[in-house]
Amino acid sequence: CPVIVYLLFCVFIVTIKTLVFPSETSDSYVEMVPLKPLQLKAFTLCMRLATELKGEREVILFAYRTGDYDELNVWRELDGRLSFYLSGDGVFFQVPELGALKTHLCVTWDSSSGAATVFMDGRKSLTKIYKKGHTIRAGGKVLLGQDPDSYLGDYDAKQSFVGEVCDVNMWDSVLPDRTIKDLVSGKRVQRGNVFDWETIQLKISGTVEVIHREL
Amino acid sequence: CPVIVYLLFCVFIVTIKTLVFPSETSDSYVEMVPLKPLQLKAFTLCMRLATELKGEREVILFAYRTGDYDELNVWRELDGRLSFYLSGDGVFFQVPELGALKTHLCVTWDSSSGAATVFMDGRKSLTKIYKKGHTIRAGGKVLLGQDPDSYLGDYDAKQSFVGEVCDVNMWDSVLPDRTIKDLVSGKRVQRGNVFDWETIQLKISGTVEVIHREL
Amino acid sequence: CPVIVYLLFCVFIVTIKTLVFPSETSDSYVEMVPLKPLQLKAFTLCMRLATELKGEREVILFAYRTGDYDELNVWRELDGRLSFYLSGDGVFFQVPELGALKTHLCVTWDSSSGAATVFMDGRKSLTKIYKKGHTIRAGGKVLLGQDPDSYLGDYDAKQSFVGEVCDVNMWDSVLPDRTIKDLVSGKRVQRGNVFDWETIQLKISGTVEVIHREL
Repeated sequence: CPVIVYLLFCVFIVTIKTLVFPSETSDSYVEMVPLKPLQLKAFTLCMRLATELKGEREVILFAYRTGDYDELNVWRELDGRLSFYLSGDGVFFQVPELGALKTHLCVTWDSSSGAATVFMDGRKSLTKIYKKGHTIRAGGKVLLGQDPDSYLGDYDAKQSFVGEVCDVNMWDSVLPDRTIKDLVSGKRVQRGNVFDWETIQLKISGTVEVIHREL
Repeated sequence: CPVIVYLLFCVFIVTIKTLVFPSETSDSYVEMVPLKPLQLKAFTLCMRLATELKGEREVILFAYRTGDYDELNVWRELDGRLSFYLSGDGVFFQVPELGALKTHLCVTWDSSSGAATVFMDGRKSLTKIYKKGHTIRAGGKVLLGQDPDSYLGDYDAKQSFVGEVCDVNMWDSVLPDRTIKDLVSGKRVQRGNVFDWETIQLKISGTVEVIHREL
Repeated sequence: CPVIVYLLFCVFIVTIKTLVFPSETSDSYVEMVPLKPLQLKAFTLCMRLATELKGEREVILFAYRTGDYDELNVWRELDGRLSFYLSGDGVFFQVPELGALKTHLCVTWDSSSGAATVFMDGRKSLTKIYKKGHTIRAGGKVLLGQDPDSYLGDYDAKQSFVGEVCDVNMWDSVLPDRTIKDLVSGKRVQRGNVFDWETIQLKISGTVEVIHREL
């Protein structure tokens, strides 16, 4: 029964490319090229990240901007909460502080119900109702590391990301909780259809190191 | 070998009824009808909960009151510690703050040794010795959402529960650590014999929503 | 197929000896006798611990001292960060606070790259570069509970450990992340070759209780 033998005895060491933002800058960022336009009525966005930025400091975790709008920005807020913004006011979650330990973070949103949740290391938050009926617009650019206040510029070092980030994947649907738990433990159950970190094309600007780490 | 096939390929999405207390009130609560009288010399009490109440705010998590006594009350204290009280002074545990992420919480106590512990998401606390030889009395009522300061009334909005709670189960014994870890991951290894959330009779007062969420 | 039957139906309750330091002292400690000299160019050091010491309080978690040097000391710092020191300045990690819940903590370091990381409950930190090329010296003593400021004395109650600690194991190499995750879940994948808690010789001074707890 070879499948069983495989499950019991084989351990593979999997490495993954990891982006290291070593210091606070206003010009280091990574553009991620999507597999399809980001016209979205639902999404799941996941990443692994660690940052020791602390105290009264906003940190941009993901920025998708079109000409005039922050279409989907994910933040660590001044007070430690996580939030995301779909062109306008945001939705906030009071969660454990990001820190030196790598966190597997997912954000999900569904336009039809407005259900918005976050997951940290597979633990799901309570559900908030946010921007029911909204659609995220296509035609912009996605950045890691900086928050563009115009298209694409006006970066603020005091909002930049410093730390390690990897395994950024995105889907145009809300994944089942069970699937997100599998992602945390490294099972590649389903590849992202908007961003797939294994094959993703990255455009690096400024000082960002790409290293390979054990997943 | 059908058992194996089942293990490898079948993923069920399990939903569970969840109580949502949307706002601070002094009159919203849920009475839970027990399967047997709560005359207890040991117990394990588990639940999943999320609450964004924060700062200088007590939060009642479980209240079992007889005529004159708070027989078994579980609290989030002003300073974020978890505690429980068996008719008198309580026992306190310094644990990570409750927040937007759902926490699987268990409390165990055994009269013969006095051993008291809490578990959060399967992580066990150190052991404290508390009320050795005590017996919890039968004949009262169990509430979620409010702390009755008389039988049954005198609710204080500033102590009420706001957030989501589900999967409240109770046993008249201390479960092995391993069993509690299985409960966290959703394995229904053993149904509660004092409260069993799957079959429980709930009496809802005030504004409490019952929704179904993926476990 | 007996292997499968074993996997599906057998649950063993494993107990482990646990050291309880019940109160703050300047004379309670445990010396751990190593299996080989601690001349090390790499290591993995793991333990399970819980402590409710809080606020402006340093806590010594592991002290290896030779005649004139703190060769390898692991601390909870005043501000809650974890750190370790290899004879000189330390390396710091901003992590969740230690508390009443038992934490599985590992520290790894490799001289050839200088890579230093911590793991809490299997979650790995970002990587810091620290003391590349350094070698830890043999010939000292390892203590739990106190930090010796001379060889071996000058203990400070305000730095002592109070709480529970067990499962202290050490290797002279950096274990794969996967192996550390297995250790967290209690799989005895690889016994420590510097310290092996199952067979370790302990020399207890002062008030330290040895109890057996379910792992």
